[in-house]
Amino acid sequence: MLEELKEKVWKANLDLVKHHLVLFTWGNVSEIDRKSGLVVIKPSGVSYDEMKAEDMVVVDLNGKVVEGDLRPSSDTPTHIEFYKAFPNVGGVTHTHSTFATAWAQAGRDIPFYGTTHADYFYGDIPCARSLTKEEIEGEYEKNTGLVIIERFRRDKLDPIEVPGVLIKSHGVFAFGKDGDGSVYNATVIEEVAKMAFLTEQIAPGVPRADKFMMDKHYLRKHGKNAYYGQKK
Amino acid sequence: MLEELKEKVWKANLDLVKHHLVLFTWGNVSEIDRKSGLVVIKPSGVSYDEMKAEDMVVVDLNGKVVEGDLRPSSDTPTHIEFYKAFPNVGGVTHTHSTFATAWAQAGRDIPFYGTTHADYFYGDIPCARSLTKEEIEGEYEKNTGLVIIERFRRDKLDPIEVPGVLIKSHGVFAFGKDGDGSVYNATVIEEVAKMAFLTEQIAPGVPRADKFMMDKHYLRKHGKNAYYGQKK
Amino acid sequence: MLEELKEKVWKANLDLVKHHLVLFTWGNVSEIDRKSGLVVIKPSGVSYDEMKAEDMVVVDLNGKVVEGDLRPSSDTPTHIEFYKAFPNVGGVTHTHSTFATAWAQAGRDIPFYGTTHADYFYGDIPCARSLTKEEIEGEYEKNTGLVIIERFRRDKLDPIEVPGVLIKSHGVFAFGKDGDGSVYNATVIEEVAKMAFLTEQIAPGVPRADKFMMDKHYLRKHGKNAYYGQKK
Amino acid sequence: MLEELKEKVWKANLDLVKHHLVLFTWGNVSEIDRKSGLVVIKPSGVSYDEMKAEDMVVVDLNGKVVEGDLRPSSDTPTHIEFYKAFPNVGGVTHTHSTFATAWAQAGRDIPFYGTTHADYFYGDIPCARSLTKEEIEGEYEKNTGLVIIERFRRDKLDPIEVPGVLIKSHGVFAFGKDGDGSVYNATVIEEVAKMAFLTEQIAPGVPRADKFMMDKHYLRKHGKNAYYGQKK
Repeated sequence: MLEELKEKVWKANLDLVKHHLVLFTWGNVSEIDRKSGLVVIKPSGVSYDEMKAEDMVVVDLNGKVVEGDLRPSSDTPTHIEFYKAFPNVGGVTHTHSTFATAWAQAGRDIPFYGTTHADYFYGDIPCARSLTKEEIEGEYEKNTGLVIIERFRRDKLDPIEVPGVLIKSHGVFAFGKDGDGSVYNATVIEEVAKMAFLTEQIAPGVPRADKFMMDKHYLRKHGKNAYYGQKK
Repeated sequence: MLEELKEKVWKANLDLVKHHLVLFTWGNVSEIDRKSGLVVIKPSGVSYDEMKAEDMVVVDLNGKVVEGDLRPSSDTPTHIEFYKAFPNVGGVTHTHSTFATAWAQAGRDIPFYGTTHADYFYGDIPCARSLTKEEIEGEYEKNTGLVIIERFRRDKLDPIEVPGVLIKSHGVFAFGKDGDGSVYNATVIEEVAKMAFLTEQIAPGVPRADKFMMDKHYLRKHGKNAYYGQKK
Repeated sequence: MLEELKEKVWKANLDLVKHHLVLFTWGNVSEIDRKSGLVVIKPSGVSYDEMKAEDMVVVDLNGKVVEGDLRPSSDTPTHIEFYKAFPNVGGVTHTHSTFATAWAQAGRDIPFYGTTHADYFYGDIPCARSLTKEEIEGEYEKNTGLVIIERFRRDKLDPIEVPGVLIKSHGVFAFGKDGDGSVYNATVIEEVAKMAFLTEQIAPGVPRADKFMMDKHYLRKHGKNAYYGQKK
Repeated sequence: MLEELKEKVWKANLDLVKHHLVLFTWGNVSEIDRKSGLVVIKPSGVSYDEMKAEDMVVVDLNGKVVEGDLRPSSDTPTHIEFYKAFPNVGGVTHTHSTFATAWAQAGRDIPFYGTTHADYFYGDIPCARSLTKEEIEGEYEKNTGLVIIERFRRDKLDPIEVPGVLIKSHGVFAFGKDGDGSVYNATVIEEVAKMAFLTEQIAPGVPRADKFMMDKHYLRKHGKNAYYGQKK
């Protein structure tokens, strides 16, 4: 079942290692098959070295394991909330990548300071609020998703235009049209997080870059008038 | 004697290199065989490139070499104090890993700022006090262990729940159920130390994360209600 | 057409990866053949892993593609302005390398703090001003070149003596006598940017190094009295 | 002539790359043969990739090339001053390693903050003063050596007990009993420089570590009562 997608999700998970986004088992990637409504995700706590394509777990949108001998990632309920709330999201990545996690621990949105950021994120990278005691002691992983969605709704953010988010005191979730796209965006977040940290060290109090630069760079790469890359 | 354990401790020592925790010979791992009360430890000042499994040294809990042609690590008396004081500790790692050592040199506990920390450490990572002139000029390495144990006793810390400690102006000791576990925890300490440094740079004066988040994350991975990873 | 130059430019682009100056496709190198007035440049948005020498695109100084099936880098109009304005420039590199981009985002010239800088840059590495709304919404990439050239003209800078520049809120352009030379200088800028950041952290308010040291080091490596390296 | 020593010095130069202490050709190692009074040193501006053992240059203590087709390192006169002034020094390394150079650019001694430092350096790592205009415009490389020696004389430092020094606005020189020893110490300086930078960021105003800890750690590794490592 979904053998091709399992292979793809497995490779996307290995790309977390390639891009230095994970230590040990601290990350996971999933992708949804919208036709069947099934999600393929990394198994929980399995090392990247030993993981095989057939170890990927298939779950439905209720979180029920449909295929696979291993438990799915403990973050599966968070992934599922995203797939339910955001119809244009096809892949989700979770990491504790170093610089982005530091911004999450600092509880700050990553400000738009330049074109590296604007090439992929249309605006600041938001940091969702802390979960309450009740939210944490209840359905924690599901509530993590809901708190992020709350922020996207409040600020009218589109998860493809702002394809990533920090969660306070925790880490990163990145979105994409598929699993690979979400890994790509997770990699961008880490680099942008490092650059923003350095920018503030070099020029404390530096303002954000100009809005019209953001428009230019984002739209140069995305949407119908994009002219970056090759015609497809 | 203890050939299997020597092989295991040798590999654990090599993992210090793999995880970028040591420069030259600046680290060592030991593991105890509780049945015989014998400890297997890295020889002193031998390079990781040249070291072989049979070079591992076997000592008893009095620090006497029971087997091996080489001198044991000069830090052996520190390791031994831990095995005597902490019956649940089966492995010990010592490193001068960069970010953790900077916190040690700063003389500060590493504050709990997020879930990466709480997944492995139930509370701040303590920094033990400086040794006095007398303690340093006396049985220095043994006293290093005693000063750390003093801190764990004072704060009622369990070395498996808080599996690592900084020693002021010096470096890191990490604990585990075995040698590998202590290397794993030493790796976590270095990453958490880097994240905590960055967090404070990004948001000076940031408070610790919520206690209930710490409870959730620690207990999600440890203890009888843990649900992270695969059933064993 | 220009097969040898395509091979050379292709290799120079791969060197961006080797020197850790690019993530994904975030950089490009070009070189001009002054006899024909043709420029060879990386295609837009093609990954370094898959790129072949024959994928390099040949454009004329009006930006017209003379040979190649792929679109040239979207930054081509910027490169072309440099070749038109600076007759002694034979190669151009564009990157978003981490530390240099942080200085660009901070909107600051990189001050001359030491001989590593002076060995290659005769004076501060300038940061060109922000583009206006009109400049960005018009011929953006061309205007990027013009704003940089404006700064070089204003400060009477020679792009071989000061072979690199930051562009506010964006990234780096480096110059050279050929493509390889521009990659070399882009690598120097990144290292010097890192050192300058650290220098200011270690000694806030530190003054620039002495002008006579700059003269000595720059002229030790460049010009007719140079005595660094081997006679050629 | 001195074929064995050339091989050794060549390998020591390659170790600069292995230990990430140099970019391009920015470093050099020499070693003296005290019997003949001849010094073997890296040729100037030759890349580490292409350099062969037979490319090493032999010079006498007047700086005259005794053997070799290539020019010796432009820093040769600095090395020679050290060999003339310090009879116990057998090897010298020069680098622009990142963190140490940042301290040099900041013009600060690297304070003794912990045992990693004290294991190799008995006291702060000094930063020699800036050269005057006359010293720079005169015999620059020779004067660089003399200014460093002036600092060692003034503070009664032994270059084996304090086997390295920063030179203001420039970089690092490290000393050793032979070339390899000086590379080892250059590697330690870079790591200690990074740790000291981080220490001050984590705890601004932190005092130096205790003198009696320095005594203990230095003497644990050096001198007749050393007990670190294996008996030789």
